[in-house]
Amino acid sequence: MKVSGWVTAGEGLCPQRLVLEHVTSRWGVLVLLALRERSFRFSELRREIGGVSEKMLTQTLQTLERDGMVHRDAKPVIPPRVDYTLTELGREAADQVGALAEWTDRRMAAVTAARRSYDEARSG
Amino acid sequence: MKVSGWVTAGEGLCPQRLVLEHVTSRWGVLVLLALRERSFRFSELRREIGGVSEKMLTQTLQTLERDGMVHRDAKPVIPPRVDYTLTELGREAADQVGALAEWTDRRMAAVTAARRSYDEARSG
Repeated sequence: MKVSGWVTAGEGLCPQRLVLEHVTSRWGVLVLLALRERSFRFSELRREIGGVSEKMLTQTLQTLERDGMVHRDAKPVIPPRVDYTLTELGREAADQVGALAEWTDRRMAAVTAARRSYDEARSG
Repeated sequence: MKVSGWVTAGEGLCPQRLVLEHVTSRWGVLVLLALRERSFRFSELRREIGGVSEKMLTQTLQTLERDGMVHRDAKPVIPPRVDYTLTELGREAADQVGALAEWTDRRMAAVTAARRSYDEARSG
């Protein structure tokens, strides 16, 4: 992966970069990780994630739907019922993001130790 | 990976989440991908990445150094010479981020097609 392929003169960033930003955004990560387990209705998903406003969750889901990662399944019933699931593409994204998240879990102790020694070296 | 492990009441996000934000930040990604190829001096790295201000690159490198991902090697010579390299932890992070970046490259056509059909369905 060449960095030069990720930076374009003037605009600064290539389109791939925007996709990466969507799937690694604060709420994007949590939506992908939740939907990796099972499908969710909107309000359920909001409770599962916690701390996300209705507006932000709506926006995150729309972005991921437009990118082809999330399928919005609106059932024609009364009261209306909408389920969110991952598409095949979304499952691939969720697996990648999941691997990265699991890596940070596994290596958190090393990061914490590095921070402590960095701060100590500068406070001495 | 349980979502609930990534969200903590009140604060909203766990410490792992912050590490993930550092390595997937706009410039964090590009720094990791560049240093994955070889070590760089500051000004070289700035040219390689392109479009990044001196201040932002300094901040990004400091954050990654504090997290134990980047090693800042200051040689006691005149004029001063500073090389940036990945630590073992940083190499692991770069490999994870590289895999994600390569995946977005590979799947960009599918994302573009999904966006087109999403936009068409809404403009009809």
